[in-house]
Amino acid sequence: MRILILGGDGYLGWPTAMRFASLGHDVMVIDNYLRRRMALECGAEALMVNPNLNDRSDIFRDASGKNIGVVIGDCADYRILSEAFINFKPDTVVHYAEQPSAPYSMMGFDEASRTLNNNLNSTFNLIWAVLNHAPECHIVKLGTMGEYGTPNIDIEEGWIDIEHKGRSDKFLFPRQAGSLYHTTKILDTDLLWFYVRNHDLKVTDLMQGPVYGLSTTESDLGVKLLPNFHYDDIFGTVINRFLTQAVAGIPLTVYGEGSQVRGYINIIDTLKCVELAVNNSVKSGELRILNQFTELFSVNEIAAMVKEAGDELGMNVVVEKINNPRKEKEKHYYNPSYDGLRNLGWKPTLMTGEVVKNLLLKIAEFKGNIDVTRIQPRIKW
Amino acid sequence: MRILILGGDGYLGWPTAMRFASLGHDVMVIDNYLRRRMALECGAEALMVNPNLNDRSDIFRDASGKNIGVVIGDCADYRILSEAFINFKPDTVVHYAEQPSAPYSMMGFDEASRTLNNNLNSTFNLIWAVLNHAPECHIVKLGTMGEYGTPNIDIEEGWIDIEHKGRSDKFLFPRQAGSLYHTTKILDTDLLWFYVRNHDLKVTDLMQGPVYGLSTTESDLGVKLLPNFHYDDIFGTVINRFLTQAVAGIPLTVYGEGSQVRGYINIIDTLKCVELAVNNSVKSGELRILNQFTELFSVNEIAAMVKEAGDELGMNVVVEKINNPRKEKEKHYYNPSYDGLRNLGWKPTLMTGEVVKNLLLKIAEFKGNIDVTRIQPRIKW
Repeated sequence: MRILILGGDGYLGWPTAMRFASLGHDVMVIDNYLRRRMALECGAEALMVNPNLNDRSDIFRDASGKNIGVVIGDCADYRILSEAFINFKPDTVVHYAEQPSAPYSMMGFDEASRTLNNNLNSTFNLIWAVLNHAPECHIVKLGTMGEYGTPNIDIEEGWIDIEHKGRSDKFLFPRQAGSLYHTTKILDTDLLWFYVRNHDLKVTDLMQGPVYGLSTTESDLGVKLLPNFHYDDIFGTVINRFLTQAVAGIPLTVYGEGSQVRGYINIIDTLKCVELAVNNSVKSGELRILNQFTELFSVNEIAAMVKEAGDELGMNVVVEKINNPRKEKEKHYYNPSYDGLRNLGWKPTLMTGEVVKNLLLKIAEFKGNIDVTRIQPRIKW
Repeated sequence: MRILILGGDGYLGWPTAMRFASLGHDVMVIDNYLRRRMALECGAEALMVNPNLNDRSDIFRDASGKNIGVVIGDCADYRILSEAFINFKPDTVVHYAEQPSAPYSMMGFDEASRTLNNNLNSTFNLIWAVLNHAPECHIVKLGTMGEYGTPNIDIEEGWIDIEHKGRSDKFLFPRQAGSLYHTTKILDTDLLWFYVRNHDLKVTDLMQGPVYGLSTTESDLGVKLLPNFHYDDIFGTVINRFLTQAVAGIPLTVYGEGSQVRGYINIIDTLKCVELAVNNSVKSGELRILNQFTELFSVNEIAAMVKEAGDELGMNVVVEKINNPRKEKEKHYYNPSYDGLRNLGWKPTLMTGEVVKNLLLKIAEFKGNIDVTRIQPRIKW
């Protein structure tokens, strides 16, 4: 297949590109380094310095014999995305080209506006590039479980049948997110669903939980092929933050009571799920929505797992509750469905003590790079 | 009150400004003439040439003794909106600053992108101007009944209680619109609801049906104070199109079977409803949603009413069914609630034969301006 990856420089984009190239697909990535620039502006650079995309592509070709095409450009600029479609003629697009940080989106007007305009226009331009240049192309879009928020009813996979006053209909499952970033993903879903209905697009929306990990089959080919790993308060996800705090010998910072529950997923499984979605396309006019996470944990449970694994490695981990910088329900019902990807054949990678210990050891190789001043929450909402 | 009207040059914006000024409020309008430019580009100018906003403000002051402040600028530019807030210090904002045409939004990439970016950024900038400069300001936003689409269940006013697998919660009523324009209004609602929840905004979202008419108390003070009245396929709403076709002596063009049902409202009642919303503010952190229409009609019923009134005036009206240029359900269930505004005291103006005849006579004064080539649908989706 010819697979175009939008946001191919990212934590998930780059490992995805290597995976599909390894599997023998024609792969092209496009990225404008927006996430790197934002991280730099926020004083929140990744744990290790990643080479630029062209260099990474060269390093990967030397290591694997496989090629990854690179376009440096902005997916929120239609001209650039359109040219990439005309030149590469993808039959599948994996869309990661979004500002990915909830805290960043809550900093102020400039960051919020950038999040809204980047994320909406990337998705909108993708829709139109497909309509104009590749109407049979399958769009595999990364959404987030955060679109659903924490409703008091079971979360279904994207859709819900509603019976109301003796009549019934099927609708998108209600969405109500906890940050502007997550809200832009709701807007993406609304846009995609409109164009699917009216223009017969083929779309898979993967509602992913927070990702953790920094090791995939291909990224382990060389230290310069690692995904960009963020451990800071802005771009780092909670498990990656806790792992880094354990390695650095500073307390794990649990926000509030720590009883917030989410569904988490190892980066290895992100690649498996995206691969399953790509290999099992949908029909024209179908918006397939799949909930993409492995296990439900509370923040306290995650902290306890990291502490247990860290203590076994002699790290003497301390867990500390701090004031919650976010407006979120700490006690809430949470029961999301997750059959879709398992029905496609996914065998999840669980977060065992062994997995956690291996991650701690991997991060420990970069211990000297950790800046402990950038982990405490700087953004409140 | 100090009332800022975004989109104050529009079909509804200008009459709203005159109404509030007449009632003794301090009124300022802001507009960048986007709708005029789009209409010009599409060959779809209004029935009569409206003076520019500064001139209209002068004409209105001469006629009424009341003042309307004017800012010519783009609400999708935060700097301009922000300055208007700092200078004018509104306690209420009425937000009409959106590209209002469904067909325009379905023309192609450029028009769709303009619709998305103008509408989303106007709303987004308004949210931030309020947060930064007037956190107690009440936002009265024009949404559309079209956000709901035509679901197979009763349409409630904005919200729905869902019982699911033995548990329950309250959500935004499901939205599923028939054009990109209507979809941008869904995105607006999502954005507003997020910032209401997280930042305690005060918002009223008026879900309005298609508006008809061209006469209000203040616009009748002089021909140069009339609202810009569109009768073309792009910016004209169905009743205004039919009225103009009757006056021009050409067939009323019913799209498809004509059994599509919507809730309609006279422009006189738009002003009444907006006034009720403004006079009855909401509390901080409340998103009040009101369905704003008078009566449900099928397209066939509207055509029959216009024909009956026109025939009584000797116009010999012909009704013609043409292929539906739109992707929409022609037979569908439609039962929307509409108690909210009536509970606030609204006494609706019904579309009687007398009302229709008066509108026909009013439009007939401008019969020489009608360009019959711009009424047939030029845009298909």
